[in-house]
Amino acid sequence: MISSASHTVEEPAALPSVFLRYRSEFGKALRLELSQDRSRVYDMLRYYMGWADRDGKPLSATEGKALRPTLCLLSCEAVGGDVEQAMPAAVALELIHSFSLIHDDIQDRDETRHHRPTLWAVWGVPQALVAGNVLRIVADMALEGLENRGVSLDLSAEVVRLLTDAYLSMIEGQYLDLSYEGKHNISPRQYFEMISRKTGALIRCSTTLGAVIGSRDRAAVDALESCGRSLGYVFQIRDDVLGVWGNEETTGKPVGADIRRKKNSFPVVYATSAAGEGDRRILKRAYARECLSDADVSSVLDVMERTGVRERAQSLASEHCDRALDALSGVEMDAAIRREAEDLVHFLLVREH
Amino acid sequence: MISSASHTVEEPAALPSVFLRYRSEFGKALRLELSQDRSRVYDMLRYYMGWADRDGKPLSATEGKALRPTLCLLSCEAVGGDVEQAMPAAVALELIHSFSLIHDDIQDRDETRHHRPTLWAVWGVPQALVAGNVLRIVADMALEGLENRGVSLDLSAEVVRLLTDAYLSMIEGQYLDLSYEGKHNISPRQYFEMISRKTGALIRCSTTLGAVIGSRDRAAVDALESCGRSLGYVFQIRDDVLGVWGNEETTGKPVGADIRRKKNSFPVVYATSAAGEGDRRILKRAYARECLSDADVSSVLDVMERTGVRERAQSLASEHCDRALDALSGVEMDAAIRREAEDLVHFLLVREH
Repeated sequence: MISSASHTVEEPAALPSVFLRYRSEFGKALRLELSQDRSRVYDMLRYYMGWADRDGKPLSATEGKALRPTLCLLSCEAVGGDVEQAMPAAVALELIHSFSLIHDDIQDRDETRHHRPTLWAVWGVPQALVAGNVLRIVADMALEGLENRGVSLDLSAEVVRLLTDAYLSMIEGQYLDLSYEGKHNISPRQYFEMISRKTGALIRCSTTLGAVIGSRDRAAVDALESCGRSLGYVFQIRDDVLGVWGNEETTGKPVGADIRRKKNSFPVVYATSAAGEGDRRILKRAYARECLSDADVSSVLDVMERTGVRERAQSLASEHCDRALDALSGVEMDAAIRREAEDLVHFLLVREH
Repeated sequence: MISSASHTVEEPAALPSVFLRYRSEFGKALRLELSQDRSRVYDMLRYYMGWADRDGKPLSATEGKALRPTLCLLSCEAVGGDVEQAMPAAVALELIHSFSLIHDDIQDRDETRHHRPTLWAVWGVPQALVAGNVLRIVADMALEGLENRGVSLDLSAEVVRLLTDAYLSMIEGQYLDLSYEGKHNISPRQYFEMISRKTGALIRCSTTLGAVIGSRDRAAVDALESCGRSLGYVFQIRDDVLGVWGNEETTGKPVGADIRRKKNSFPVVYATSAAGEGDRRILKRAYARECLSDADVSSVLDVMERTGVRERAQSLASEHCDRALDALSGVEMDAAIRREAEDLVHFLLVREH
């Protein structure tokens, strides 16, 4: 059992073993979905996944964490289900997540992701947009694999419905995020509403899908859904912390990156709501500029230091961690699986990338 | 019965009555899917549909043709099915079509559609991209209505599969189209391959879905699918003719519009393949320029005149029309429905917008 105290200690966290346990089987299933050669657009997608260079030549890829698939497969196992049956859902979740990043990069004009040029930076906006749309359909098609693995038609339809709902919620969250751009008065409530959709929906759906495929026990499914809901907050709040104070080597972004980009992430939203009059003026002045200078970024970091944003973020994330663990504690599961689940929850709180 | 001769006579064609017959019920079903107010993005979508101005205030809209829904509903009736059961598919087809236009406008940087500013022109690329993605999901969700209308789970799953396949094919066609940009040596074979996906897939899917929902008779479904396949060619070839020689008032585009945009549409693909050496040089010279002048457009129009592109396009479209009618002739149907179907086929050949 992870003690609550350990949540607040930040030290570089190794990737928990559960991520490695599914990696090989999941990787195979994922590659199979993108092994087509119906058109050159699949080369773009394999480039995006890190499996090929921009000319389509295979690369020895470093696999990503695959957080959402891991949550899905582990949830399925946790409720006593067959991991194989949840594999198509795990693949669909990763593809939808990747799709959203491809379109995000276009929206944010981000030229680099995972230390490589983004799709639009290499092929231009029109082709990157289409490639994202293709990936989204490949995700839909991955779910057709449920039937071959003995999942009933009823349950498959339920999975499609849940994923579609989550996906819509995610897109609506992206819309909210975009509509907040340039605003300096986003309240913490608005922020949480936005991240619960933009990030939370797909993470919550990951644990829910695994559980729903693995068990007919409504209480267990509800508990895993509730666990996923909390993890969505943990993940995004930690992401926002890393976006301001992350180590450039592990995150690929310089310190203060999200400040420079004027993102309405937790640190600035909380600082604005908690700062005194003087500090609020400093924030307002900095964010009113077209481009923030190094001195502006520094002054914002100082305000965040004074308002204790970083500690507040970690303690809030830690609370959500506890809720996720609480939800898990109500579900009967194998002791080894429970340990893996708890390690994963804890990892999300302290991860450095 | 429409005589083959009448195909080649071009006169302004009134919208066949079948488009009006479904309009009210279809319009209601379509509006219902977009009546949500979960977020402001739905205002953008209602603006796109022509139902609201950019501030969200309702407009007395002029409804579009709704070609794909009409094909779907008429096909369902033609094979003896219940139009009500096909309505969710009709709505999904229109939403997917609209989604593709929203993203197309971003890709092509088109600032006007249906005589109004496009979504990205009003709200910017990021929000328009997201709005398109939302519309795509609303389309998926519309299909959930099949069950409420007594369509079996099996058949619903089949409908989802067919629509997903068509949608993927459409997106791959868009990718091909983009990858042809800037090339001056696209062969007619490549062109037909591209339009059979980009435009053909969804039109073929429209008649197929109507038939598959309306009947278990495999031969009838195959015939309607074959009819839809031919109509895809008729539609796009006619579209390409209108893109060069269309009347600005009805199409909203000036004469020569597609030449100026250097689109690899049928007229230039065919002219390049059929022109003599001298004319081919003229085409090459004009298309090599960054921007075509009025004189360039004129010289290209002259080459097209000399190579008889327009007549070739209409006669080719007319051949596909005949194939569509042939396919219909093998299906037993009510005489009034058959007349409507034939009118619709003929309309696609001579339409002015």
